[in-house]
Amino acid sequence: VTVGRTWASPPATAPGGLVAALREVVGAAHVLVDPELTATYETDWTRRFTGRAHCVVRPASTPEVAAVLRACAAHAATVVTQGGNTGLVGGGVPAGGEVLLSTTRIADLGDVDRVAAQVTVGAGVPLVALQTHLRAYGLDVGVDLPARDSATVGGLVATNAGGERVLRYGSMRAQVVGMEAVLADGSVLSRLAGLPKDNTGYDLVGLLAGSEGTLGVITRVRLRLVPLLAARSVALLALDGIAAALAALAALKERLPTLDAAELFLAEGLDLVRSHTGLPAPVPGAHPAYLLVECADRSDPSERLLAALGELSGAMPGISDAVVAEDQASRHKLWRYREAHTESISAVGVPVKLDVGVPLAAFAAVASSVGPAVEGAAPGARTIVFGHLNEGNLHVNVLGAQGREDAVTDAVLRLVTAHGGSISAEHGVGRAKVAWLPLSRSEPELAAMRAIKRSLDPTGLLNPGVLIS
Amino acid sequence: VTVGRTWASPPATAPGGLVAALREVVGAAHVLVDPELTATYETDWTRRFTGRAHCVVRPASTPEVAAVLRACAAHAATVVTQGGNTGLVGGGVPAGGEVLLSTTRIADLGDVDRVAAQVTVGAGVPLVALQTHLRAYGLDVGVDLPARDSATVGGLVATNAGGERVLRYGSMRAQVVGMEAVLADGSVLSRLAGLPKDNTGYDLVGLLAGSEGTLGVITRVRLRLVPLLAARSVALLALDGIAAALAALAALKERLPTLDAAELFLAEGLDLVRSHTGLPAPVPGAHPAYLLVECADRSDPSERLLAALGELSGAMPGISDAVVAEDQASRHKLWRYREAHTESISAVGVPVKLDVGVPLAAFAAVASSVGPAVEGAAPGARTIVFGHLNEGNLHVNVLGAQGREDAVTDAVLRLVTAHGGSISAEHGVGRAKVAWLPLSRSEPELAAMRAIKRSLDPTGLLNPGVLIS
Repeated sequence: VTVGRTWASPPATAPGGLVAALREVVGAAHVLVDPELTATYETDWTRRFTGRAHCVVRPASTPEVAAVLRACAAHAATVVTQGGNTGLVGGGVPAGGEVLLSTTRIADLGDVDRVAAQVTVGAGVPLVALQTHLRAYGLDVGVDLPARDSATVGGLVATNAGGERVLRYGSMRAQVVGMEAVLADGSVLSRLAGLPKDNTGYDLVGLLAGSEGTLGVITRVRLRLVPLLAARSVALLALDGIAAALAALAALKERLPTLDAAELFLAEGLDLVRSHTGLPAPVPGAHPAYLLVECADRSDPSERLLAALGELSGAMPGISDAVVAEDQASRHKLWRYREAHTESISAVGVPVKLDVGVPLAAFAAVASSVGPAVEGAAPGARTIVFGHLNEGNLHVNVLGAQGREDAVTDAVLRLVTAHGGSISAEHGVGRAKVAWLPLSRSEPELAAMRAIKRSLDPTGLLNPGVLIS
Repeated sequence: VTVGRTWASPPATAPGGLVAALREVVGAAHVLVDPELTATYETDWTRRFTGRAHCVVRPASTPEVAAVLRACAAHAATVVTQGGNTGLVGGGVPAGGEVLLSTTRIADLGDVDRVAAQVTVGAGVPLVALQTHLRAYGLDVGVDLPARDSATVGGLVATNAGGERVLRYGSMRAQVVGMEAVLADGSVLSRLAGLPKDNTGYDLVGLLAGSEGTLGVITRVRLRLVPLLAARSVALLALDGIAAALAALAALKERLPTLDAAELFLAEGLDLVRSHTGLPAPVPGAHPAYLLVECADRSDPSERLLAALGELSGAMPGISDAVVAEDQASRHKLWRYREAHTESISAVGVPVKLDVGVPLAAFAAVASSVGPAVEGAAPGARTIVFGHLNEGNLHVNVLGAQGREDAVTDAVLRLVTAHGGSISAEHGVGRAKVAWLPLSRSEPELAAMRAIKRSLDPTGLLNPGVLIS
């Protein structure tokens, strides 16, 4: 962590200084300089990324964001935008000295457009608040993930979040049909009509989605909505390996158009979860791999799920056992084996966290080579992998690699890209992976990204050090 | 049409000239200068846009395209890229003097990846050739449109084509999971892995899709595939107006997850089609509006379609009649009423062709105001509207407005944008609508587009005058 030039400059609260200018814009109560108040903004929740902000500013509207950016530009300060601070790659916390712009006060929930099945909401709305808002209309958002209580809509869009339902609805970019954003020059890009067909030039909305705060500050988002599917059924399959998990998923996808999620975890992850949570084994015995699948529909999908599992159990030798949960309590119990992975790992230590995407054809090979690759880089380290099987998205967590973090990262990311994979499937690049970006992006692509960044943010106001090195 | 500087320069075939340099790259047979050979490339099929090319060059591979662009840049020439020359806005024909780069020789059909349900193909592959290629695998492309025999995959992507299945699968951009393209500096952007989750920076692939050849030359495309659904059923509903058509569509969408298309046409269009084709009335009597819907599934969807129509006919007073076609011949007959609109209009004269997108909430109001707006701009002109109802996409064709084309265009586009609509739903901007782009795009958006264009094509090599004014 370096302390930046702005932070080291004249006292932040001096008359005529940046803090005074920002207080003019958003009101004194919404510019924080007291370290006790700024601390929660300055460290990410994994505690791996931390840096002091010049101040924290909390605008409540798009015009206030525009005025904040203009003031920062006038004072030669830089800006880091933060939503719910649930990112995993250090893209939303300061490196040192930036103004931290928090979007959490831009939290308006628009009326639901039932005809178009769309809604416009403020960037600072937490996902769970939007889900609650939509429930009354029988509607839902296509993306869901465990950080839903804190993660904001703006942050989900800025990082093109993935999660557990990409199989059915795609990533966050695919949900975005409109956007309002403030560019580095303070101009407001407002495109909120949500027209399903609109071929009038470059897809600026899609470009800003996933740009990690480097091209503009997203202030409002218009989302396509999906039906709220309350009838759910979950199955957990015990398998003799990853190849069997892939075959089972392919067969289930063909039979179940209502398939919503397909999550993979392995024996070592389950052991860790059980010792942390005290949960019993989900099925008798120990098995190399587990596949959790969920179906969602307007009416109970259990019968079709059971029928599909019946067909598979006769035809596929790799399936050792399966259990189906129909009521809500049992469904949550099965999901807990998967979702408790993160906290169970954190309880043991601070892991090296990697999030890779692998072509399905190479998935089994990569998944079985990760452990040996880590062992080569950090002998004795413990590797736990789990992930979203349909997209070949593997979360690699390595414990006990202190002092060898970069070597582990390097070994795993080189393994993945040698098999045509991506160094970041859903977490993004942030500060954490910017050094490894050339493994996933060629020099012409990096040059194009730098050129676009310069064209929209020539002075480097927004999120310096994130994504673009 | 203006004759550009390059065309007027030294003889095209002079030693050391551009044509000689291009012949070095692609071979003499693939650089055309004979007007008899270049003519079909220089005029679009509507015959509304025409211009002389310096020459037509037909590279067969990505490296050849890169060498062509480098040669053109070295000779200070500009380049227009053309696929199947089925565009409707003059974006793929020269204004005068450009080198016309035809992609039709880049026509490799890659192996189908059954596990990922993806395929990589050359930009010059006609849509129909790809559809034929995929049929053997039980797979299909998510976009289909009447120009399928000529329209190339590269052109469909560069213009983000829409068509008749957007309701179910989205526009062309949504089908693209990877791309190879040559940028203005001759560098090759290659991103063909097709990973469903890959958050490593800006969505360059999505940015080039729909950029109408202004940011790069697309040479290969990787597409997601959808199941080939051969079991189809088509219904034509006669309705007492557009409001009834919207209500019927909403009710059908709720009941029929297999709905594939929902096409609207009106009494005046049907009259024109019948007098041109000699077809009988599809249902007895005359009706203000008609809605054609198609369902597609693995097994025959007729029963569910008939059941849904039965429910509607009891509950919705605006439905006057309905006919269902189950066998292929009757399905084609019903589709003919919709698809023959374009040729029937062209048989009467050269129409002003507009293609607008309207929010569904304003759709009925706009559709009923188009006629009066045209009458105000060109008294006595004849207005025929039809389109893709689900997306609020209205094709407006005006006959008998000679000399008043711009006034008609202006009146209709102002009406549409006053209701929150788009001046181009699926045809794009090209040269035809660039003067009206500020109706659909704010100054900050236009500035952002110009900045991105300059950042990737600083000398203005690619498609000058198209999209960016």
